[in-house]
Amino acid sequence: MKNKPFEMCLLFDFYGEVLTEKQRELFDLYYNEDLSLAEISEHIGITRQGVRDSIIRAEHTLRDLEEKLGLVSRYGQIDLHMQEIEKNLKIAIDINRTKYRNVDLQATLGRMEEHVKAIIG
Amino acid sequence: MKNKPFEMCLLFDFYGEVLTEKQRELFDLYYNEDLSLAEISEHIGITRQGVRDSIIRAEHTLRDLEEKLGLVSRYGQIDLHMQEIEKNLKIAIDINRTKYRNVDLQATLGRMEEHVKAIIG
Repeated sequence: MKNKPFEMCLLFDFYGEVLTEKQRELFDLYYNEDLSLAEISEHIGITRQGVRDSIIRAEHTLRDLEEKLGLVSRYGQIDLHMQEIEKNLKIAIDINRTKYRNVDLQATLGRMEEHVKAIIG
Repeated sequence: MKNKPFEMCLLFDFYGEVLTEKQRELFDLYYNEDLSLAEISEHIGITRQGVRDSIIRAEHTLRDLEEKLGLVSRYGQIDLHMQEIEKNLKIAIDINRTKYRNVDLQATLGRMEEHVKAIIG
């Protein structure tokens, strides 16, 4: 049953706050902490079946929201791409500073840096 | 009552698909088409009060989701910043091509371009 944990963690990151506190706790133990249903059952003190049902309901809620809103597919990978943009921007700034000191290029790269920071925070 | 239309349109853009079809229709006429309650009432054939109630319920649903998920505040301005990044990246590529033809800089800017495209699509 525990398939696509990366997808589930992304869905949880985006939409987890619509779940009940109990669902969030179980989901977190199962997907983020990677415990088994039996381990969670023992840890929390509800039946294995109860844990399973709660996690399945949570999965349905998250999948249903993504099906409607599509925000994970729209924004889910942005952080990874922004990190790469930031890394390469630093290299470009460095090349200009050490080799050319072109003020137009410096200003252009500086503006990009501001907008990257506005996104990454 | 019709205040913060920009905020409302952003909320609608992110979360509108959780509303009922009727709510979406009324919300769209009110905020995107900028009709008045009376105009919508006449156009749709339900009372002005009915239109008003439906839009208020829709606003509550959208605000409640944003309060829980915060995805508009996290991603709402990204498109604007990405456009600026893309614009300045083109300028930087152009400066390097016409002045320096530095292959390292070209490769770095090229990698940034790929990641920008992956986000903007």
